[in-house]
Amino acid sequence: MSTLDALVERTTSSSTRVVSVACAADTEVLEAVEMAIMKGIASFLLFDDEERLHQTIRDRFPELDGHPNITIIHAISKEEAAEKSVRAVSSGEAQVLMKGNLPTAVVLKAVLNGDYGLRSGKVLSHVAAFEVDGYERLLFVTDAGMNISPNLEEKAQIIRNSVATARACGVHLPIVAPLAAIETVNPVMTPTTDAASLVVMNQRGQIKDCIIDGPLALDNAVSIESARHKGIMSETAGRADILVVPSIEAGNILYKSLMYFAKAKVGGIIQGARAPIVLTSRSDSAETKLYSLALAILSSKK
Amino acid sequence: MSTLDALVERTTSSSTRVVSVACAADTEVLEAVEMAIMKGIASFLLFDDEERLHQTIRDRFPELDGHPNITIIHAISKEEAAEKSVRAVSSGEAQVLMKGNLPTAVVLKAVLNGDYGLRSGKVLSHVAAFEVDGYERLLFVTDAGMNISPNLEEKAQIIRNSVATARACGVHLPIVAPLAAIETVNPVMTPTTDAASLVVMNQRGQIKDCIIDGPLALDNAVSIESARHKGIMSETAGRADILVVPSIEAGNILYKSLMYFAKAKVGGIIQGARAPIVLTSRSDSAETKLYSLALAILSSKK
Repeated sequence: MSTLDALVERTTSSSTRVVSVACAADTEVLEAVEMAIMKGIASFLLFDDEERLHQTIRDRFPELDGHPNITIIHAISKEEAAEKSVRAVSSGEAQVLMKGNLPTAVVLKAVLNGDYGLRSGKVLSHVAAFEVDGYERLLFVTDAGMNISPNLEEKAQIIRNSVATARACGVHLPIVAPLAAIETVNPVMTPTTDAASLVVMNQRGQIKDCIIDGPLALDNAVSIESARHKGIMSETAGRADILVVPSIEAGNILYKSLMYFAKAKVGGIIQGARAPIVLTSRSDSAETKLYSLALAILSSKK
Repeated sequence: MSTLDALVERTTSSSTRVVSVACAADTEVLEAVEMAIMKGIASFLLFDDEERLHQTIRDRFPELDGHPNITIIHAISKEEAAEKSVRAVSSGEAQVLMKGNLPTAVVLKAVLNGDYGLRSGKVLSHVAAFEVDGYERLLFVTDAGMNISPNLEEKAQIIRNSVATARACGVHLPIVAPLAAIETVNPVMTPTTDAASLVVMNQRGQIKDCIIDGPLALDNAVSIESARHKGIMSETAGRADILVVPSIEAGNILYKSLMYFAKAKVGGIIQGARAPIVLTSRSDSAETKLYSLALAILSSKK
């Protein structure tokens, strides 16, 4: 049984990794930082108004006050915090970027800056890792957050991003299932024709380090019994590690359904830039933020 | 707490309803028929090769042999069984059509026949009713099975079909949530602009007998806490009875996620023809088939 807590454990051996946080003077952000520090999974560079950040730490997180794994760096505005935190990653001081209490757009603008940013020329995509009761493996879901309606080339890059994440988590040859509503190729359903192309791109070495098997409906991707019942002749159907959704709506619905109805645990990151980015939102639990940090740290370059 | 078993109970008062089954000589189909007969929710007209049907009943379902609520009618082929079973509904002998052991395409061809079929000029759409652990209401999901990528007009008709089903199940003024990835209107995301149009169509009386509130992400549709957390000012956000998915892929993924990960119970029917149609598949449990029959019987005209 693979769990997200096991990922956190795995991360403790990476304690030399540094996370750069834009706008850290926020109790919910600092709660996640504190958990990560206590678990020993990383050191942190915290960017924000120095006085306010110090004050918040002294008042609410006394264990972090003067902690050797924390460095506070002054920024006069959200924009400056974003720029400085991104520059810290560009320069190699930090290996992971984390969004604190500022709009996503401000962080992404700094990430995409042509001068000091983290552009790699690749598509940025969201990768989530779910721990679902009754499913023995971690289930990676991509892209439920960045690309609205990815075309074939974007899907190929989204898969490459997610394969890198899964491999960083110890899944050496992930099984990738491009999801559709059916498991056969139907010319009027683009998710099925794109899935067929992705399968052949994998066979021709255009997408490496994984096995792509699709199109599959969700049940045939995650249940060997369902795949057999449908008469699908495949060694990999029903054993997916990575579920590739055809649209942001399908992804968001799967993500929320797993969270709200299946009570799954989750962590998620943005891949495709020169370093992994943790873009958690205010509604995420401290646990989700910790899992996201673990995913990012494991995915970061050594 | 509304349950699917409560729907079955509610159906027992409709025992004068008749279900017409195309190609009934199949143990899985007859298993559902037997459950429905024992619960007293309907009578059945069974169409198939008479000898084979008699034989299967005698061998496997002795309690149905000679049962007063069962009538066997001979059909020499699947096509004839489809035609005769549809004609029985057209003529008013039966109020619900059920697919037995024959391809969906053969049944739908008979349903759509211009001469004896069940066309009403409306869009045919799938409506599923889910009982999800921890959610106090039945959750209707539409359309996870018929329309690949419905346009606005089709979505309006899909909603009307689902509202009729929800009302037949006792939800007098269902709250309808057109789902998207976000809860704001974004010009480049059609599910959000369509949702806005559907809201106004509801306000202008173009879609009646329900309250439409969208766009909503799944969590904001089903969790009042999530809706509040997002700052959504609405009395209905978080209290959806009907979830309208933007594509067949999103619907299929939600359907399968509820089944496989949240272990939900489900029944489903096709609405939009002159009578409800039960189109369950071989992989559906006998329980799902019974719930689908109950949904169809409740949705049928008195």
